[in-house]
Amino acid sequence: MTIEQVQIVTYPRIAAVDGQLSIFETGANIPYPMKRVFTVLANAGELRGQHAHKACSQILVCLSGEIIVHCDDGLGGTCSHALRRDTQALLVPPGIWASEEYRIDNSVLLVLCDQGYDPDDYIRNYATFLAAVKGT
Amino acid sequence: MTIEQVQIVTYPRIAAVDGQLSIFETGANIPYPMKRVFTVLANAGELRGQHAHKACSQILVCLSGEIIVHCDDGLGGTCSHALRRDTQALLVPPGIWASEEYRIDNSVLLVLCDQGYDPDDYIRNYATFLAAVKGT
Repeated sequence: MTIEQVQIVTYPRIAAVDGQLSIFETGANIPYPMKRVFTVLANAGELRGQHAHKACSQILVCLSGEIIVHCDDGLGGTCSHALRRDTQALLVPPGIWASEEYRIDNSVLLVLCDQGYDPDDYIRNYATFLAAVKGT
Repeated sequence: MTIEQVQIVTYPRIAAVDGQLSIFETGANIPYPMKRVFTVLANAGELRGQHAHKACSQILVCLSGEIIVHCDDGLGGTCSHALRRDTQALLVPPGIWASEEYRIDNSVLLVLCDQGYDPDDYIRNYATFLAAVKGT
């Protein structure tokens, strides 16, 4: 997987007088049925993630605050995206090392996954990740 | 559908030093793959919903603030559940008239659906809903 496979996913955000809706739908803006959905609430200064997945794709959405997502394909390609409560989420495919930097207290990240939880799907050691992507 | 089919769904909320996770997974605490996920951000005093679905099941989660969910089966059965950021969500099956009362500014509702969006799946008129559940 290379860094070009990390992609912006646009979602509708509908503002009505009685509230605002943000919508994620399989076959519309999400390319898979969502087997696992989780939220992370964290404060400014926290750095989370710092792992890659072997098989799981994830779409990251900022529901509140500001979260910078740093991605690294282990082959020299990197990118960073600032997520806020707007209309842009980030698709992080498997094989990408990703970290989330929380910039504002009480930021909320919503993560939409195509796979259930499997501890064996995580690569948490960066040297192991580099060896895996380089096939060594 | 009767009011007994409206059920509490428990979800794990994991508190770590660097953040709090809330987790929803098909086959674990969610009985279906999530085809549509949406969030609603609304202020105190808003009353949303006020419709029934013909086929769509929804699990309602409060990510922030406080939201009272009022349910009515049209056959005399009603219930109300206060959702907060804890470990309890609410499964609202099709055939139940539901309304969400937002109690605190910037409350956030997360809705996990088993169906995509279909405007024909909504019953927005209460008399029509009563006629449908009574088979008249």
